[in-house]
Amino acid sequence: MTGRLIGVGVGPGDPGLLTLNAIAALKAADVVAHFAKAGNASNARTIAAAHLKLGVEELPLNYPVTTEIPKADAAYREALAEFYEASARAIAARLDEGRVVAVIAEGDPLFYGSYMHLHVRLAPRYPTEVIAGVTGMSGCWSSIATPIAQGDDVFTVLPATLPEFELERRLADTDAAVVMKIGRNLAKVRRALDRAGRLDRAIYVERGTMSNAQVMPLADKLDTPAPYFAIVLVPGWEGRA
Amino acid sequence: MTGRLIGVGVGPGDPGLLTLNAIAALKAADVVAHFAKAGNASNARTIAAAHLKLGVEELPLNYPVTTEIPKADAAYREALAEFYEASARAIAARLDEGRVVAVIAEGDPLFYGSYMHLHVRLAPRYPTEVIAGVTGMSGCWSSIATPIAQGDDVFTVLPATLPEFELERRLADTDAAVVMKIGRNLAKVRRALDRAGRLDRAIYVERGTMSNAQVMPLADKLDTPAPYFAIVLVPGWEGRA
Repeated sequence: MTGRLIGVGVGPGDPGLLTLNAIAALKAADVVAHFAKAGNASNARTIAAAHLKLGVEELPLNYPVTTEIPKADAAYREALAEFYEASARAIAARLDEGRVVAVIAEGDPLFYGSYMHLHVRLAPRYPTEVIAGVTGMSGCWSSIATPIAQGDDVFTVLPATLPEFELERRLADTDAAVVMKIGRNLAKVRRALDRAGRLDRAIYVERGTMSNAQVMPLADKLDTPAPYFAIVLVPGWEGRA
Repeated sequence: MTGRLIGVGVGPGDPGLLTLNAIAALKAADVVAHFAKAGNASNARTIAAAHLKLGVEELPLNYPVTTEIPKADAAYREALAEFYEASARAIAARLDEGRVVAVIAEGDPLFYGSYMHLHVRLAPRYPTEVIAGVTGMSGCWSSIATPIAQGDDVFTVLPATLPEFELERRLADTDAAVVMKIGRNLAKVRRALDRAGRLDRAIYVERGTMSNAQVMPLADKLDTPAPYFAIVLVPGWEGRA
């Protein structure tokens, strides 16, 4: 008798954006696992805190590195792969005991989420279920009540880590866009949007659904480093109603 | 004293994917408005049914046309514009009486949702709030537990209504994709994916989070017309872990 793995999307930040299925999964779980940067609280845990059962086992999965080593570095990839392997082993040990393990994930587990690294290692071996969540980007455009895409719009999600000319090319070739992982790439993203002729509509959003959210036209944002999870919205729905 | 407008995302179909905020909005609402094709039940209403207050006023907004008239036709655009104007007026009348009107919307209200047509007409004049929802596409890839995008993937949402060469070009130029509004465009989408070299990974999903869901490799799907809301997923995360 093996246990069950549940990837649980807990939404973008506001605990009110938890789904009924996510809350039911937290009730069913014997173990709740969550990713965090070592020394930091897990965002997913903060969002779900009110629904953790008394006495449930918590399994913190702490990233060995995040931005200290450049991503292209082989040491970075190796450290991360080892970390995902060890995390999967820790969860497998509990599943082998017949326990239900919920891995809570910010946003939607299968959309740019760390959970996926565990999923591909464990889903082939254990009964697995994934509970969709409200994505961070949905949380952002909803919190500022800004329609993002409509009708026959093409919508594109771009990582700000792309080369500048690639960002420019793709931003000029889509109706609506979300640029993620802004971090140190703010100046580059602004230049690309400017050259693509889309800067005037771009909105900078930091901590979208939190009480301390920062929202402003990207054109007005200083070129200081932004948080890694800041995003830029380029609404596509213009002049139509 | 005017009322308040709330755009409420009710998620992709499974009532368990309603958020706590959506349920609270339904509790607060004096009026619940929902879009549907005339003669059909509103999908959003079906999803939210268990949370409608006894005696709440329901305001059905029935599309005058959907696919009977070609979209490029001026008569289609005119009929729809008139319908959105009339719907906005009906809601405004209730807001002017100081009532709280919740417009329930499948998926996420600001992501390809009909709610946006009311939002742009009413949000400038009335206090308005939007509650993000789990999108239909998140519901689909979660129900089949298939990771869609990771890391520095580019992710693109494409309407199947695009010309075939445009679909092919864009499918060849993205890591992950979702093709929406499959309907009568199934054969075209398959040809475009084939020529873009992505057909082998494409998954056809019909009624994603419903109990009667249909899921299969797109390569195996017959060229019969598919439902308008069927989608095709092209996962981007391949060979990496």
